[in-house]
Amino acid sequence: MPDTTRSDYERLVERLTARGADVAAIERRLAEHRIETPSWGYANAGTRFGSYPPPGLPSSPFEKLEDAAEVHRLTGGAPEVAIHIPWDRVDDYGALRDHAASLGLRIGAVNPNLFGDPRYKLGSLVNPDAGVRRLAIDHVLECIRIAEAVGSTGISLWLPDGTNYAGQDAFVARRRRLHDGLAEIYAALPDGIELLVEYKLYEPAFYATDLADWGSALLACQRLGPRARVLVDLGHHAHGVNIEQIVAVLADEDRLGGFHFNNRKYGDDDVIVGAVNPFELFLIYVELAGLPRLPRLTIDQAHVIEPKIEAMVLSVVNLQEAYAKALLVDRAALAERQAEGDVLGAHELLLEAFATDVRPLTAKVREERGAAADPVAAFRGGDWWERVGSRRAAVATTGGLGA
Amino acid sequence: MPDTTRSDYERLVERLTARGADVAAIERRLAEHRIETPSWGYANAGTRFGSYPPPGLPSSPFEKLEDAAEVHRLTGGAPEVAIHIPWDRVDDYGALRDHAASLGLRIGAVNPNLFGDPRYKLGSLVNPDAGVRRLAIDHVLECIRIAEAVGSTGISLWLPDGTNYAGQDAFVARRRRLHDGLAEIYAALPDGIELLVEYKLYEPAFYATDLADWGSALLACQRLGPRARVLVDLGHHAHGVNIEQIVAVLADEDRLGGFHFNNRKYGDDDVIVGAVNPFELFLIYVELAGLPRLPRLTIDQAHVIEPKIEAMVLSVVNLQEAYAKALLVDRAALAERQAEGDVLGAHELLLEAFATDVRPLTAKVREERGAAADPVAAFRGGDWWERVGSRRAAVATTGGLGA
Amino acid sequence: MPDTTRSDYERLVERLTARGADVAAIERRLAEHRIETPSWGYANAGTRFGSYPPPGLPSSPFEKLEDAAEVHRLTGGAPEVAIHIPWDRVDDYGALRDHAASLGLRIGAVNPNLFGDPRYKLGSLVNPDAGVRRLAIDHVLECIRIAEAVGSTGISLWLPDGTNYAGQDAFVARRRRLHDGLAEIYAALPDGIELLVEYKLYEPAFYATDLADWGSALLACQRLGPRARVLVDLGHHAHGVNIEQIVAVLADEDRLGGFHFNNRKYGDDDVIVGAVNPFELFLIYVELAGLPRLPRLTIDQAHVIEPKIEAMVLSVVNLQEAYAKALLVDRAALAERQAEGDVLGAHELLLEAFATDVRPLTAKVREERGAAADPVAAFRGGDWWERVGSRRAAVATTGGLGA
Amino acid sequence: MPDTTRSDYERLVERLTARGADVAAIERRLAEHRIETPSWGYANAGTRFGSYPPPGLPSSPFEKLEDAAEVHRLTGGAPEVAIHIPWDRVDDYGALRDHAASLGLRIGAVNPNLFGDPRYKLGSLVNPDAGVRRLAIDHVLECIRIAEAVGSTGISLWLPDGTNYAGQDAFVARRRRLHDGLAEIYAALPDGIELLVEYKLYEPAFYATDLADWGSALLACQRLGPRARVLVDLGHHAHGVNIEQIVAVLADEDRLGGFHFNNRKYGDDDVIVGAVNPFELFLIYVELAGLPRLPRLTIDQAHVIEPKIEAMVLSVVNLQEAYAKALLVDRAALAERQAEGDVLGAHELLLEAFATDVRPLTAKVREERGAAADPVAAFRGGDWWERVGSRRAAVATTGGLGA
Repeated sequence: MPDTTRSDYERLVERLTARGADVAAIERRLAEHRIETPSWGYANAGTRFGSYPPPGLPSSPFEKLEDAAEVHRLTGGAPEVAIHIPWDRVDDYGALRDHAASLGLRIGAVNPNLFGDPRYKLGSLVNPDAGVRRLAIDHVLECIRIAEAVGSTGISLWLPDGTNYAGQDAFVARRRRLHDGLAEIYAALPDGIELLVEYKLYEPAFYATDLADWGSALLACQRLGPRARVLVDLGHHAHGVNIEQIVAVLADEDRLGGFHFNNRKYGDDDVIVGAVNPFELFLIYVELAGLPRLPRLTIDQAHVIEPKIEAMVLSVVNLQEAYAKALLVDRAALAERQAEGDVLGAHELLLEAFATDVRPLTAKVREERGAAADPVAAFRGGDWWERVGSRRAAVATTGGLGA
Repeated sequence: MPDTTRSDYERLVERLTARGADVAAIERRLAEHRIETPSWGYANAGTRFGSYPPPGLPSSPFEKLEDAAEVHRLTGGAPEVAIHIPWDRVDDYGALRDHAASLGLRIGAVNPNLFGDPRYKLGSLVNPDAGVRRLAIDHVLECIRIAEAVGSTGISLWLPDGTNYAGQDAFVARRRRLHDGLAEIYAALPDGIELLVEYKLYEPAFYATDLADWGSALLACQRLGPRARVLVDLGHHAHGVNIEQIVAVLADEDRLGGFHFNNRKYGDDDVIVGAVNPFELFLIYVELAGLPRLPRLTIDQAHVIEPKIEAMVLSVVNLQEAYAKALLVDRAALAERQAEGDVLGAHELLLEAFATDVRPLTAKVREERGAAADPVAAFRGGDWWERVGSRRAAVATTGGLGA
Repeated sequence: MPDTTRSDYERLVERLTARGADVAAIERRLAEHRIETPSWGYANAGTRFGSYPPPGLPSSPFEKLEDAAEVHRLTGGAPEVAIHIPWDRVDDYGALRDHAASLGLRIGAVNPNLFGDPRYKLGSLVNPDAGVRRLAIDHVLECIRIAEAVGSTGISLWLPDGTNYAGQDAFVARRRRLHDGLAEIYAALPDGIELLVEYKLYEPAFYATDLADWGSALLACQRLGPRARVLVDLGHHAHGVNIEQIVAVLADEDRLGGFHFNNRKYGDDDVIVGAVNPFELFLIYVELAGLPRLPRLTIDQAHVIEPKIEAMVLSVVNLQEAYAKALLVDRAALAERQAEGDVLGAHELLLEAFATDVRPLTAKVREERGAAADPVAAFRGGDWWERVGSRRAAVATTGGLGA
Repeated sequence: MPDTTRSDYERLVERLTARGADVAAIERRLAEHRIETPSWGYANAGTRFGSYPPPGLPSSPFEKLEDAAEVHRLTGGAPEVAIHIPWDRVDDYGALRDHAASLGLRIGAVNPNLFGDPRYKLGSLVNPDAGVRRLAIDHVLECIRIAEAVGSTGISLWLPDGTNYAGQDAFVARRRRLHDGLAEIYAALPDGIELLVEYKLYEPAFYATDLADWGSALLACQRLGPRARVLVDLGHHAHGVNIEQIVAVLADEDRLGGFHFNNRKYGDDDVIVGAVNPFELFLIYVELAGLPRLPRLTIDQAHVIEPKIEAMVLSVVNLQEAYAKALLVDRAALAERQAEGDVLGAHELLLEAFATDVRPLTAKVREERGAAADPVAAFRGGDWWERVGSRRAAVATTGGLGA
């Protein structure tokens, strides 16, 4: 940490302490903040109009872990890596787990893939065809076994099933099939592995998605049992929906399973979290910081044009700063003003925390964990390309799905 | 019914019968279709920018019932009238019930008002101030007594509570207060009266509404008991949300309480149902027509510039036609194509029903109930103004809330 | 046409004639309604999550024309085929034109592709790199030469350029580059070829699209000259935007170039036109039917799970029916009611036209053009697969861009 | 300024100077930042569901100026007050101007009211009735005379005209009337007064608004002449629309007339600017800070539940901070990274500026203008109520438009 940052840090501590904040406790909580980065975030990504793979992409799950390790090394806060099957299928999952450990990482949630196989054209767990439903369930069961093999504690299930046309299928019949499939999956979960159920408004389904909102996902989890929880992806809502309120409701129902962090201005844009509406991200963290413990926090982004590792480093930094700001909120004063109906007084306490430049604080905590004071600058000024990227083979580009 | 309509009707029956449809059964179901029109739909309405009351507005709950009777006379399908307290407060509720009966009407749901009293500035059931919460609960309890007095079977509760600024209040604390208030209300419900719980994305709350979506409303109902059900207002969703799917889910959970029908292109515009997206309305009725019985169906619109009675007549006609089209769907063929994964084949069966001109059918059913073959034309060509409107006093206009 | 349809037709003519409509004139206008179907609509399509190519896909531009000919044969209203370069690049464009002619078709607009080449990662005409801008301009110039070779009268330009992050590039600098590139392209247009400039709210750009709305596209066209006109794609707007009003404004400015028809409920879903909101489609045709001549009308859809030819046939049928309904509007009565401020009276005239079942009319007009009375049924009952599909080679599937 | 703020300020100057920023120039520009507050923002405001006027509201245009003076006293940056006719109609406009001057204020834009009179039910400048159009034009002409009398340099025209139902009126006929009306108004503008033309997606019109987007407003201005410019209200767009891009385009066309600042999460919520998405506000100021001079910057909010003066003070402070952050952007470095296609590098320069806590800087500039270092705290801790509020009469509440 440069001297100037150090003096900014000291000034900030002074200011917070004067206000009665317990800075040591805040730093402890910041140090415990852990993000899962997604293995697929290091690989090629695109839109339906094509992708533009840069040189240096990892060509195996093992290489993706190396990229994740770089992100963790710089940020000190990304020790886990979510994997996606079949993209991360390997012969020896013990070797994958060991490779992760050797890099200071653990394998996070295992994500089944219920859209890539052409037999999923009309859906997976909800397909009208029992044979395809069997295929889908078996795939998730395989993922459970993989989770056990890699030491993962979670299956993160995104169900892309839905319909594209009114009348294409019957809502209630689909619901029955969905609940039946989930029940079989839940029954196969060993102790110590939780099931995260994700929802999404649309895409790839364009008329109706079977798990389209938090309410549908929560009802499904209620049917299953306590280890089924809802996963919130910031890009999976209609415009205007208040996500921090959903977080609060799910937590209050003890069903907040975790996050897929990203950001969007339009649809499910999957750009860097914090890049579109950092105040909304802060408000989400204000809810999270009030919980007894943080849920699973995962990044899920598609870096189409931006350098993938830098994008991931910046994402983790944005999350760390959002959490730091949330920890600065004077909650006792807030509760008091809320109880008094002091509308703006309460709101201003959030603005106060958000306006604070917390970078000296996050820099300090990162440094103490052996990471970089300024991870983005460290990456941009570093030698990752020389060490790693330049040794990797090029990946072929694609001209989009219409090609 | 003019001869040409009669011959169109016969041609339609021939065509449907050839396809295997049971036209008599369809007509029976159409004849049982009953809409509640809202007493407030006959009164002055506006936006925050002002209102433009036409001459001839009713000046009492009794006069509003007369307008509702005209709508029922013409459409044959609007025998119930929802009322709103305090706007429809009278000294003698027995007299109101009798007046309705004398007009061939019944009193429908009783709607409490939890926004008009200035003490509700920061909310009603969820207000941080216990005294205001008491006021709100007592008002709903009063409405329950009114419901008993007028022979109503439902309390229709729209909770406008919410916050305008992040931090203004705590989501979970508000949720506790909300559930406590609802529990007291539910406990006071006599047998034979149900509680309809409405949700709304926003307005008047601009940051977070406590019951913002069907999920929140459903969770509240689950806590209360079987006579608490969710009420769907077509204008209370974010853009893109699939309302017919919500209808199916709520019905499958046995929590579909009913509707507030209207239409919107933007926010909660409250224009005439069927005026913006009649295909969506048809799809909602396709779900309703598949249920063992129709839930409570109420119109809730704000006729700001359009003639109020004509608007209500047109609304009922639009609903009757949507239901008629939904009843034409060949459900056996549909289920077969859905099971086969015949995406477009299934969709085309809905298009077939929607493309059918059902006006001869609805005209026939209306005539058999003693109503008008073409209610809108009958109203436009009729003498309502001479009989009723011209005898009423003018209502003062307002220049909007900024004035 | 079956006898029953014939008698429905006669009944409809009687009804319309009684109302004063000139049915012969309506049929003449219907017979002149011509749709361009897109060559790429017969090929594989998907979302970023993958595609599911069915057997029988065309493997060359020549085979795509055969599919288009089938659509025209059945509907009688799709005599033109838009092509997309490089997907439809061939050695001999004269041969392509002749092949089209031999099938009773003409080549419609030529669509350059400014996204598939990996060098377009940061944009094409607006790329910060002058070399890439050169590449993009040269590609469009090549498309102009192709247009001349195939006898096309239009270049249809969709510019996907935009940015994904705030600050990524400067709005005004980009605008200058855009206008410069377009100016060079426009200058190269031979007489008899027009330039259609398309706009789109988002995707693939997720922060700012350079031509994001009709206003931006119109300003660009104003700079170019009278042969530059705006192309409206129904899926390229924000929620709530009134498309028929945009159509009216562009036509009033003499800048309405044409359409890319499709439908959407969420983002740019590209599902079958008329499948989501047929009333909106009707309202657009109400505007079109009031113009001296119809602009270029093209379908642009991505048939991901539905059979591609049936989807295209249904799309053309939906457009024909929308146009037929629009032609039924009693415009003299409408103008009168509008002038009188008869809000609902005017609206009801549109409802009257929309409620009419026009299928007997469109069936009659199609039959007179030698096409099918019921094109969808004819396709479903026909032998396209035996004649054509089964002889084609299978296309490989893809597991999505994340794979 | 407390010593701690002073030392924070010095540290910030040091940091910025080290980066090459010219802090003195930044402060000079900040000192020139002037906001118009709206007279109607000090008066009662509500939604269609009612309003909750607090004690102490001003009862005359003169008293509204006193409240505006308090906001200017505390923030040092709100020396102008926009007025609204007829709400601010007085007998002697010279006296109003003098009263403003005596309080250190000037009268800003004059806003005609084209919705309050019941004769505007079907529109004002676009009304089908020529007599009503005359009324509307005459009202605007009166406002021009008022503008001259009070020394205002702008007429700020919001046209609420539109339709609620498809078919209600003809788009093109309305456009002609609109342009004719505006032409007469523009012709009457004396030198030194500009015409600001505002657009709005919807409300009070629910089907189509005549000036619904920036494109429509710009076309209208092009027809009028150089003193007609477009006014951007942050709450008047569809979801997802990129407002900062519109700002850049309008400025590039030399048609950026100014702003109505507020914020929204849903519709035209009119809550405090910066309360929903401060990053978007910053991005708008990044565009503004790049212009040769700032356009007219006005607040237009409806403070329904929050204390009105505190809300206005907070709004001005939020704008000052957004501008300060925008002035910190390292534009030379930004242009360089943009030219290099350094997507994240460029974006990170904006994040750097936004993350900076600029409150010491804005406090310093305010203090130098004789205003408060912390205006919100100063108001909350001040004696406005004792000095002013408690002496004012109460205003009656309303129970909403449905009452």
